[in-house]
Amino acid sequence: MNGAESMLQTLINNGVEVCFANPGTSEMHMVAAMGESESIRSVLCLFEGVCSGAADGYGRMAGKPACTLLHLGPGLSNASANLHNAKKGHTPIINLIGDHATYHKKLNAPLTSDILSLANPVSDWLRVAEAAVDLPSAAADAVYAANVKPGQVATLIVPANAAWDESIQPLPAQPAPIVPKVSDAAISESVRLLTSGEPSILLLGNMALTERALELADQIVQATGTKLLSDTFIPRQARGEGRCKIERLGYFAEQAVEQVNGAKQWVMVGTKAPVAFFAYPDKPGELYPEGSSLHTLAQPNEDAEHALEKLVIALGAESYTPRKIVKNKPQSGAGNLDPVTLANSFAHYLPANAIVVDEGATAGGLCGPLSEAAEKHDWLGLTGGSIGYGLPAAIGAAVACPDRKVICVHGDGGAMYTIQSLWTMIREQLDICVIILANRKYQILQIELSRVGAESVNEKTLEMMDLSNPDIDFVKIAEGMGMQAVRAETAEQFNEAYSKAMATKGPCLIEAIMP
Amino acid sequence: MNGAESMLQTLINNGVEVCFANPGTSEMHMVAAMGESESIRSVLCLFEGVCSGAADGYGRMAGKPACTLLHLGPGLSNASANLHNAKKGHTPIINLIGDHATYHKKLNAPLTSDILSLANPVSDWLRVAEAAVDLPSAAADAVYAANVKPGQVATLIVPANAAWDESIQPLPAQPAPIVPKVSDAAISESVRLLTSGEPSILLLGNMALTERALELADQIVQATGTKLLSDTFIPRQARGEGRCKIERLGYFAEQAVEQVNGAKQWVMVGTKAPVAFFAYPDKPGELYPEGSSLHTLAQPNEDAEHALEKLVIALGAESYTPRKIVKNKPQSGAGNLDPVTLANSFAHYLPANAIVVDEGATAGGLCGPLSEAAEKHDWLGLTGGSIGYGLPAAIGAAVACPDRKVICVHGDGGAMYTIQSLWTMIREQLDICVIILANRKYQILQIELSRVGAESVNEKTLEMMDLSNPDIDFVKIAEGMGMQAVRAETAEQFNEAYSKAMATKGPCLIEAIMP
Repeated sequence: MNGAESMLQTLINNGVEVCFANPGTSEMHMVAAMGESESIRSVLCLFEGVCSGAADGYGRMAGKPACTLLHLGPGLSNASANLHNAKKGHTPIINLIGDHATYHKKLNAPLTSDILSLANPVSDWLRVAEAAVDLPSAAADAVYAANVKPGQVATLIVPANAAWDESIQPLPAQPAPIVPKVSDAAISESVRLLTSGEPSILLLGNMALTERALELADQIVQATGTKLLSDTFIPRQARGEGRCKIERLGYFAEQAVEQVNGAKQWVMVGTKAPVAFFAYPDKPGELYPEGSSLHTLAQPNEDAEHALEKLVIALGAESYTPRKIVKNKPQSGAGNLDPVTLANSFAHYLPANAIVVDEGATAGGLCGPLSEAAEKHDWLGLTGGSIGYGLPAAIGAAVACPDRKVICVHGDGGAMYTIQSLWTMIREQLDICVIILANRKYQILQIELSRVGAESVNEKTLEMMDLSNPDIDFVKIAEGMGMQAVRAETAEQFNEAYSKAMATKGPCLIEAIMP
Repeated sequence: MNGAESMLQTLINNGVEVCFANPGTSEMHMVAAMGESESIRSVLCLFEGVCSGAADGYGRMAGKPACTLLHLGPGLSNASANLHNAKKGHTPIINLIGDHATYHKKLNAPLTSDILSLANPVSDWLRVAEAAVDLPSAAADAVYAANVKPGQVATLIVPANAAWDESIQPLPAQPAPIVPKVSDAAISESVRLLTSGEPSILLLGNMALTERALELADQIVQATGTKLLSDTFIPRQARGEGRCKIERLGYFAEQAVEQVNGAKQWVMVGTKAPVAFFAYPDKPGELYPEGSSLHTLAQPNEDAEHALEKLVIALGAESYTPRKIVKNKPQSGAGNLDPVTLANSFAHYLPANAIVVDEGATAGGLCGPLSEAAEKHDWLGLTGGSIGYGLPAAIGAAVACPDRKVICVHGDGGAMYTIQSLWTMIREQLDICVIILANRKYQILQIELSRVGAESVNEKTLEMMDLSNPDIDFVKIAEGMGMQAVRAETAEQFNEAYSKAMATKGPCLIEAIMP
């Protein structure tokens, strides 16, 4: 049994079922090992950023890692932006990166590079398996590292000779990492802050956004009157009918400051104190008032549900019944397509148990708020700020949950980063409806330009944020990758295409022309 | 004058004329500065890998750097694979990477990452400008570093507050770096080896592949009988009518070993001793026989033409007239499209002064050999082994040389990595003909699979190298980005489309269906 085979069997023994692959020559033995196995699904992607984004979407929905298969330093580089998102979102992922044979590296062949330096910023765990006999334990350790909650990016560099040389037997299933519980002191300090009579904020993120965690948070709100907020960018949140409501902290600091309304007592669960996405001249980066009391009830890696349960008990809040959202869909939009009519239609036809992958950016900004009382669904957000995650993440979510409809709401600018994703959706016949919001500009930049105080706004400047000239025809691009696609220029056209997509299984794309 | 403006004016004063940009919020002041200036052309790309690949193509043809404009760590990551190619190919490039304001970094906002670690492997020169007043000198130093011959990748990280704070005056044009000349000892050792009577190889790369350098090399060949070879992957080579012939070292070690035919005396000019692209079990990585005498006449950064001139004189070879290629185009292909007929047609219709950007991979492997006696042209190759360089590099070459036809011969698999390039070709109305060689597989991997000794070749394994299911329709994808495109299924159809493209200015795409 060679190193690749023993590594792969160890991964399989430890629960890995899927590999999002874009291999090259140095990965051929890993490809051959996967070809021999019936226990791993290999999903070919046409670009490594699709692999890593898909692994992100998969990890968020499956709660366990898929692996990527990447070709040396450049393959990792192409995957890196979406690994950045995954790391910021605490998604479990295992990267398998092929490298030159150990003895070949010193020759400085064209594909030689410093993979460790490239991998370190986007990995929580990183190892080179120098020899075939190291691969089974390295694989087991990688799975363990990836499964440290909420999840970690584990990167294993596999030199070609480690893959092809004779190895030892694969390792069996290892115990899963234990999720740390919060201390009693963390609970009692939370009680003190939330019952002090001063205005307070309970801020949730990551593992504190499950259906159960939100119910517990709602009991706390009822008992204490604290304001409840979630992080702006969330890996996954249970939403819609039957779930408990939570307001999301705004992206723009001005919005956030208004939501916070001067509250100086903050209790964080599963997240850290909020900061502005970008710095702006003469504005603070912290979104909490100076002199605030910041208390972390649960770190992102700690058991958030358990912490909230203990807090509910400590506050005597068990008697409050969680106030679950009663379904109250908006009417579908009519007339012109714009962010309001589109979001209304999106929410109106959203089917129960859907998974929404959100990279809707400015044009899709109302899809979240207006679907709060729609059918129940899960929502995946852009956690690391690197655009081009949505289409790949939709692939991963659909692979993880083949019985659920995935809806990917995507800005046109971001969609062009990883547009190759459409091909894999067709190849794997995934149940994904892609909605491209085609406003034909990087609208967020046009907004940010003045906010950062860049005073000169002339035609040449605006051209650098403009996606018209030429207009992109997403219908043709999708058809070029074998995907059914339709353009909607009015709300009625959108409603027809979207409602039909929701009633039909399989991949499709709707290009919504937006102002 | 803020930091962005003073930096930009310093770049302009030092000869920078073009920026390939994919900016974000943290780059808004740099965008605004470019918007104000009439001395810099800003070319918007829909993905950062297009920016870096375009800067690579530009640098090779312009002989001086363009800059890229990239958005923090993820923007750099997306650019990184083509920066890897550029670094291996010694192309002058300046990367401008926006970062958070210095005081914002500690807050660990979603887009915060270790940019230095990501940048180091793909940069020859790397600096963070901590303050606005540092930017003019940093910009001048970056240009200097980029211009160190043959060229270097210089990366300048620009925190947002360094861009927006008040700066000092821009710097004027700085002196260019001096190109080191080789020593007399290097010449005399070359003479000794080439005149010893033993079989020898003269291996050229990088700056030794100019028209003039090849003439000098041909005089040396005539005087000494040495075998002349070039690197397998070349940044730029003068080819075709009126140039001197040089044989390229084969990609596969088996080919290379045959070309070398046991010669144990090697003189390298502008390059290093050749090594195999990948390691294979039980095969040596060095492409020269054990015990060879390896002598470097000129390192890649040394003046190769001058070294060859001195060597010609030392050998008394001035009396030999360089044997220039007499035009002898092949007949255009007829019948089925395959690597032979396609390459014949490619060479037959190749116009004078064309620039060929080659990422033709296996299906395009004969385009080089069969165009040796075609009209004179320049040839740009894939220097770092990271696929997806061709379409972007064609953009850069066309921007650098607006009066020359650019022909980009591209494998279908590689083309999908940076397919967004087509949009920029249209937007800028560049004179590029893209030929997609659609064999619908990663053919090189199917070849390599058995060469690396991965024995199990079953259907599941082959599927991971297969690009059919679904077939990609490049005509529709191109049309989706506003590009005229046509499919050719026979040599006659190809000839019609290609000859028309050569006679017409402007961007177009031909999808050649290959076996």
